[in-house]
Amino acid sequence: MPPSPNASNASPADAAVRDARESDLPRIVELLAQLSLDTPREALGPPLPESYRRAFQEVQADRRQRLLVAEAQGRVVGTASLIIVPNLSHQGRPYAIVENVVVDAAERSAGYGELLLRHAMGEARRAGCYKLSLTSNKQRKEAHRFYQRLGFRATHEGYRVDL
Amino acid sequence: MPPSPNASNASPADAAVRDARESDLPRIVELLAQLSLDTPREALGPPLPESYRRAFQEVQADRRQRLLVAEAQGRVVGTASLIIVPNLSHQGRPYAIVENVVVDAAERSAGYGELLLRHAMGEARRAGCYKLSLTSNKQRKEAHRFYQRLGFRATHEGYRVDL
Repeated sequence: MPPSPNASNASPADAAVRDARESDLPRIVELLAQLSLDTPREALGPPLPESYRRAFQEVQADRRQRLLVAEAQGRVVGTASLIIVPNLSHQGRPYAIVENVVVDAAERSAGYGELLLRHAMGEARRAGCYKLSLTSNKQRKEAHRFYQRLGFRATHEGYRVDL
Repeated sequence: MPPSPNASNASPADAAVRDARESDLPRIVELLAQLSLDTPREALGPPLPESYRRAFQEVQADRRQRLLVAEAQGRVVGTASLIIVPNLSHQGRPYAIVENVVVDAAERSAGYGELLLRHAMGEARRAGCYKLSLTSNKQRKEAHRFYQRLGFRATHEGYRVDL
């Protein structure tokens, strides 16, 4: 994809993917807030609601889940969650899921999303996973082109029921 | 859905959902083999490949995952995996995923799938999840009608990349 007019000048060569730290949390929640397509569903504070810190600790305690951030020039520009799922099918091979993939709206098309996804694919491969799956809201046409360019195929319908 | 000609006479009233035991494993793998739409991807044995036992133990050791079976008249007629995922978005509320949902082809339309899914919804609700998600291959039109009837909405595209 050509860089959008909003893309930063940082090239992905300046950027790296790493595991999130608790000090990244307010910034990560800012990014997650950009995922809401209609009603805002995050509470940014300050102060940041305690529920985020509890959830962060749950995520950290889960050895199957990695909360990733892409950092460029000292700034967190994107995030994604990678989950490795132990699994019986496919002769007992695990699979991987990425969720909550977001690159800051002001930093799109600079390659950070690709950096995050390629990192997730590498980690999933290393864990012996037979596939990496993700779901993307049907309204996000641009995200769909992005995933297809990275080799993802829309083989499934993504269903949900609100609880 | 009306009972199919292959439906057993057992009503879901005779059936129950429980956590799988290791002794259920050969039967569960038989059911999972029914998920292959093209090339067979399971190895049924006997002997059942050791990789399934290792995967079963991994699943059992994962406190976020439950391997469920529906049992009717002493026979396992269906299975589903329920995963509770700790999560930062939605103010730190977890979500749930069901995967590998299968009811024996000879026992379809008797209500066992609904029994499994309603059980999964109940467990997800108890765990504080804001949604229960699943993906279903676009070719499975009948499964889609089933999920829609249970209140699931196809809001997302389900992408995958093979590793």
